[in-house]
Amino acid sequence: MSPKITTELLKQLRQVMKSPKYVQEPVQAYIVPSGDAHQSEYIAPCDRRRAFISGFDGSAGTAIVTEQHAAMWTDGRYFLQAAHQMDNNWTLMKMGLKDTPTQEDWLVSVLPEGSKVGVDPFIIPADQWKRMSKALRSAGHDLVPVKENLIDTIWTDCPQRPCKPLITLDLSYTGVSWRDKIVALRSKMAERKVLWFVVTALDEVAWLFNLRGSDVEYNPVFFAYAVIGMNTIRLFIDGDRMMDPVVREHLQLDSNLEPEFKIQVMPYGSILSELQAVGAGLSPKEKVWLSDKASYALTEAIPKAYQYLTPYTPICIAKAVKNASETEGMRRAHIKDAIALCELFNWLEKEVVPKGTVTEIIAADKAEEFRSQQKDFVELSFATISSTGPNGAIIHYKPVPETNRMLSVNEIYLLDSGAQYKDGTTDVTRTMHFGTPSAYEKECFTYVLKGHIAVSAAIFPNGTKGHLLDSFARSALWGCGLDYLHGTGHGVGSFLNVHEGPCGISYKTFADEPLEAGMIVSDEPGYYEDGSFGIRIENVVLVIPAETKYNFKNRGSLTFEPLTLVPIQTKMIDVNLLTQKECDWVNNYHEKCREVIGAELERQGRHEALQWLIRETEPLARVQ
Amino acid sequence: MSPKITTELLKQLRQVMKSPKYVQEPVQAYIVPSGDAHQSEYIAPCDRRRAFISGFDGSAGTAIVTEQHAAMWTDGRYFLQAAHQMDNNWTLMKMGLKDTPTQEDWLVSVLPEGSKVGVDPFIIPADQWKRMSKALRSAGHDLVPVKENLIDTIWTDCPQRPCKPLITLDLSYTGVSWRDKIVALRSKMAERKVLWFVVTALDEVAWLFNLRGSDVEYNPVFFAYAVIGMNTIRLFIDGDRMMDPVVREHLQLDSNLEPEFKIQVMPYGSILSELQAVGAGLSPKEKVWLSDKASYALTEAIPKAYQYLTPYTPICIAKAVKNASETEGMRRAHIKDAIALCELFNWLEKEVVPKGTVTEIIAADKAEEFRSQQKDFVELSFATISSTGPNGAIIHYKPVPETNRMLSVNEIYLLDSGAQYKDGTTDVTRTMHFGTPSAYEKECFTYVLKGHIAVSAAIFPNGTKGHLLDSFARSALWGCGLDYLHGTGHGVGSFLNVHEGPCGISYKTFADEPLEAGMIVSDEPGYYEDGSFGIRIENVVLVIPAETKYNFKNRGSLTFEPLTLVPIQTKMIDVNLLTQKECDWVNNYHEKCREVIGAELERQGRHEALQWLIRETEPLARVQ
Repeated sequence: MSPKITTELLKQLRQVMKSPKYVQEPVQAYIVPSGDAHQSEYIAPCDRRRAFISGFDGSAGTAIVTEQHAAMWTDGRYFLQAAHQMDNNWTLMKMGLKDTPTQEDWLVSVLPEGSKVGVDPFIIPADQWKRMSKALRSAGHDLVPVKENLIDTIWTDCPQRPCKPLITLDLSYTGVSWRDKIVALRSKMAERKVLWFVVTALDEVAWLFNLRGSDVEYNPVFFAYAVIGMNTIRLFIDGDRMMDPVVREHLQLDSNLEPEFKIQVMPYGSILSELQAVGAGLSPKEKVWLSDKASYALTEAIPKAYQYLTPYTPICIAKAVKNASETEGMRRAHIKDAIALCELFNWLEKEVVPKGTVTEIIAADKAEEFRSQQKDFVELSFATISSTGPNGAIIHYKPVPETNRMLSVNEIYLLDSGAQYKDGTTDVTRTMHFGTPSAYEKECFTYVLKGHIAVSAAIFPNGTKGHLLDSFARSALWGCGLDYLHGTGHGVGSFLNVHEGPCGISYKTFADEPLEAGMIVSDEPGYYEDGSFGIRIENVVLVIPAETKYNFKNRGSLTFEPLTLVPIQTKMIDVNLLTQKECDWVNNYHEKCREVIGAELERQGRHEALQWLIRETEPLARVQ
Repeated sequence: MSPKITTELLKQLRQVMKSPKYVQEPVQAYIVPSGDAHQSEYIAPCDRRRAFISGFDGSAGTAIVTEQHAAMWTDGRYFLQAAHQMDNNWTLMKMGLKDTPTQEDWLVSVLPEGSKVGVDPFIIPADQWKRMSKALRSAGHDLVPVKENLIDTIWTDCPQRPCKPLITLDLSYTGVSWRDKIVALRSKMAERKVLWFVVTALDEVAWLFNLRGSDVEYNPVFFAYAVIGMNTIRLFIDGDRMMDPVVREHLQLDSNLEPEFKIQVMPYGSILSELQAVGAGLSPKEKVWLSDKASYALTEAIPKAYQYLTPYTPICIAKAVKNASETEGMRRAHIKDAIALCELFNWLEKEVVPKGTVTEIIAADKAEEFRSQQKDFVELSFATISSTGPNGAIIHYKPVPETNRMLSVNEIYLLDSGAQYKDGTTDVTRTMHFGTPSAYEKECFTYVLKGHIAVSAAIFPNGTKGHLLDSFARSALWGCGLDYLHGTGHGVGSFLNVHEGPCGISYKTFADEPLEAGMIVSDEPGYYEDGSFGIRIENVVLVIPAETKYNFKNRGSLTFEPLTLVPIQTKMIDVNLLTQKECDWVNNYHEKCREVIGAELERQGRHEALQWLIRETEPLARVQ
């Protein structure tokens, strides 16, 4: 992987930073965040402005360019990747390390007195704007909105914004109609005494209307906003996709609906002016509800006195708690996913061990091929992490021809992959050795497994926040002086984004609403030895009620049920490091894999994979 | 306990709220917070203004009096007590219940338009002022500072502010001279580019100058402020205590010191005017460092542009990391404390079991008597919680004649107590049964013990925040559906406040700086069965480096070493619920108690207590 040469681009950017054509006054620094106008994690090619200017294309990172400097903030997952992808013009700011300055502190240390710092107000979330603006102001600088995106002005071959057809989901998938979702939303609005709710996150628009799209790779969403009033529904969306009779029927656009359920379709680009009109028409005490992560531009369209901002929207919270139809869909999706992985691992064992002709890319493609044979497969849910040996230590690795490595009997292979099926979203990581793992590799794997089990089997009171469970995943690793620099789990959508809020399991305590039954998160501790190998064991798990002796004085008990049912390679386990309970957990888990996935392999006539499954789920015998 | 009759007092307060003698314009509401001008947790009698006006004397509560209403906000610990102590003039606002309005919301709901809400600017912390002021302003009201405290104007028999003699601590106790502490502080100031640092917390003043006092019960502090410049030291303190030749010598007040170490002693009451003078003399970019919890009055003395506010001061952070002399002092203090408790428990067994004549108060007094026999004993470090049976479930219980219960062979006894010795501060809880505990009591005790051990034996990377360890203390309880509604641990001062920041172990994630070797915290999980019993097992533990196999890639490993060495009653343990490791932990801990405390009991000739210690530290034999 050779770095992108950015000298010329930075020169051009520094020119437009001073050009009266784009800025009222010259800006001495320009911030290029990762996101799009919806604060999406996965973004369309046209929104990859940070990657364009820097070369670094990981999922998280913020670039800041001043007249003299260019700096990139990213987290532990991407230290190696960013260092590889960026040229000498860039300074890598390793977030999470003690000596790394915050963006604000760094700006204050490098800027001349009374500087202006520019940013696209549609891209920066309102809460970040507020924090950054305050910090800069107190040091005598100003954060200023630059309406025209400065990267777009120099990005001559920027791709078009996608505008692909929509998929409608019926009740058998969603469990609740969009009308009922609107009714529930309006009742939350009434509770909080707000008159309007602005839907800015793409997955929230998709969830609310029971629609899916494919404007963004991996996330089945489409570019749209919605503004919901007590008697009006406005959907801001472009293209002729609203001409599709199936969509029209689904949204009842041509029916004689009660006025409060009549959807007004408006151009995507008109959201700002429509919102300004809403803002201008408000009387005292009338409020507009927005996420505090909505863009600064949209938030400022509503006068401050009328804003009602919350970290989580009622849609975000409702969406996180899956109903029976969604949970059943997720179960089906995970069964199909397990079939594909049993096929894959069986195939790998046959190909890697004797022939040694399988590369990371071939393995990833094969995984996709097996998944695509399953019913209702739509696409992958994220870029497959297919990594062997040292590549496994790059936490968010994606094989490309320059880094592509051959799988072998000498190295650990880590596969983190998932798919979008029409009935659910999957995300699973397995770490395999096709030869004989070393004692150290087994030791590390076993500690990671102990952490995985500690979370999966944890029992905790109803309403516990996920961050209180994070250390359970680390305790065994910590005991011998090992750790991993990422969170333990994230929320997972139902045929929606593979990473979704508001719950998760992380040492980071923000973005963390209490866990309740029906929520779905991942459980994925790991261990990474730079230059040697990576280990991660990931299941998607469903929060379910637990049976406890005393039940927290009727507060209720919760635990997790694994939805992922793919064998965990027993060859990698040092059984002597497991307690009897942990040993039992592994054996029970494998028994369930055999039962559920075995039956489906049988049904699909996949006999060889079934044999593999049976071999891989032999009970562990604990050495006493 | 009969309520205090406050009709006349409230009438008087409402008069002064309108009197031009005290307020520029009448105030329609007056806030009476709990704290003093230093935001202390424990306060002197002269600062108990909220208790004076309302009758409610719990440790936490805020009173607000308007022309029509009088309301008291307090938390779940004090609902019963506040209801008993206050008359019908008062409305009890139960914090934490869903329908209880916040102070701001309540004020907005009862005040006439455009009201003024008064508060003593010396009592309200700047961060609270900011929040309250913002909320009131957005509803059209104003929060205004009332310089003269209105309670003081009607409190005719208000006690004098204490002004007791000072204790000087030499290097053998403190390890670092006050001069070296000033040098270190100035280097932190230079790092942050601030010219002045204002010391407002009483324990920070005491620590900085290696002085102690007894102006406040339990906390060995004295009323003072300090303002440290790069070349000046100003100590604001009253009374003739600065005439004491020992103090003068300690502070080198009469020596020919370099000017930058010359302490200027000024009247306590002149802090505001001196600070205003500092504020008026600043040039651009010159900053003054204050805690964001300093009073509004002192914070506002510095123009906003010159304020540098942080949640923790450099003194707070330096004070938390104990040096070798302090650690050794804490060890000695805990040995003495253990001697006293061995004596007490031996005495209790002799008195309670056959005679049944010991009350909670008698037991508490006896504990104090034994402690006071130890060298360098100064006073208790907090009000002893001596509670038996149902009283044990009241987490912050203090026995008074109305609630005083007889210890018996039928009920669990919980003793949470500690002392100030000149070499250290102690805080220990033991839960005992003098008869035969029930299976349920033993089960609960054992889960609490498992939690205590899980924290005490935890190994974690250097710099881990305490909140990440909190769930370790709960995991065993959670497994059977039990929990406790308080944090697991707090920082402990070195012959200073028994509760100190900035570290701790709690599910609450604020007030939580990373743990490092030398910090001292408590480890005190519990379980409380309302109406029946309370269980808590508390040791004070020192953060120490741990030996781990892989040492977190040289980041360093930490664990805890118990400083408290008092037997944990094995009669209460259900050994079958312990793992072998936990069993070993208990046996090793008891071996250390025998070794260290046994030797000291021997040295002090306390043979009967030694026999008790030996009996109580018999190794557990695990039932297989």
